[in-house]
Amino acid sequence: MEFKNVKIALASASPRRQELIRKLGYRFRVLLPQVKECYPPEMEVRDVPLYLARLKAAAVEAQVDAEEWLITADTVVILDGEIIEKPACPEEAEAHLKRMSGRRHTVVTGVCMKHHRREYAFSDFTDVYFRTLSTDLIRHYVKGGEAMDKAGAYGIQDWFGMVGIEKIDGNYFNVMGLPVHRVFETLQQHA
Amino acid sequence: MEFKNVKIALASASPRRQELIRKLGYRFRVLLPQVKECYPPEMEVRDVPLYLARLKAAAVEAQVDAEEWLITADTVVILDGEIIEKPACPEEAEAHLKRMSGRRHTVVTGVCMKHHRREYAFSDFTDVYFRTLSTDLIRHYVKGGEAMDKAGAYGIQDWFGMVGIEKIDGNYFNVMGLPVHRVFETLQQHA
Repeated sequence: MEFKNVKIALASASPRRQELIRKLGYRFRVLLPQVKECYPPEMEVRDVPLYLARLKAAAVEAQVDAEEWLITADTVVILDGEIIEKPACPEEAEAHLKRMSGRRHTVVTGVCMKHHRREYAFSDFTDVYFRTLSTDLIRHYVKGGEAMDKAGAYGIQDWFGMVGIEKIDGNYFNVMGLPVHRVFETLQQHA
Repeated sequence: MEFKNVKIALASASPRRQELIRKLGYRFRVLLPQVKECYPPEMEVRDVPLYLARLKAAAVEAQVDAEEWLITADTVVILDGEIIEKPACPEEAEAHLKRMSGRRHTVVTGVCMKHHRREYAFSDFTDVYFRTLSTDLIRHYVKGGEAMDKAGAYGIQDWFGMVGIEKIDGNYFNVMGLPVHRVFETLQQHA
């Protein structure tokens, strides 16, 4: 298992993604891509995360060393064919979670990996089924502050993920923000 | 959200279950059930975990205070209609994981909750899909020691779970050893 010598530049401010790459066993440095997360309005929502991951890659590419693997990612939550954005305030977080209560939504993470001018890009999809949630439970979670700055206003690894999610169909870590099994597989095959 | 005053006696030596109940937000004390984990050979394998959870409950019931909720659980991994037991040695762990490579298995956790002479019992099922795993990868994991003393010879929360599992269909925490959403729901409804 020769895998720890790969050099990675992870262009993501997400503490979850940083933790996942660390647990995977790789050393990495963090770059912070400065991009406006805009996408063409006519784009299929399922293609948006990969589009944004590529945008982030383009923004930092000049800072990446020749031997480094650049990794960027973007995660969105899709309900009724619409992207549920990160909540701007607690009220919006509550509204998002109420809308998702008792229903299935899809989490999509797009990943862009670049090395020696080659690109390895993919999207991973996980269906998440919320239990029917009381307003009390939703407010209790939102009040704790963990809903903010997260796609779809929740973290699967939070208390909310423990009590609010009945089941998932797909990869768990993809919901956290990075389908690590596929990142690992790509590095094993091509690094 | 009045839920933190419930008193729980968790009869389980599993550090994972203890951590999950803690994260759920409950205080608890730990009891250690001394039982031989035997079950009738003709029993359907999917019924075994709940049978064993009830056996554990019976073993400690006399130690539980009147106001306490007793919680016991048992988790098994089923492949080809057979229970994949906890490995007795690293060689067995390797053999288990090789057999499960590239295939789907089912994780069943049986939970027995008792309070005021009432029983709330259920089983939860999660299908887990392993990627095709190299002998190198399996050995690397087994060498680290984390495969031992775990149903099916792996922990979904381990490095192995990150790189080896493609997807699951069902609840994530159920694979860790406790379907916490159902424990929480039961306490919310009946405590």
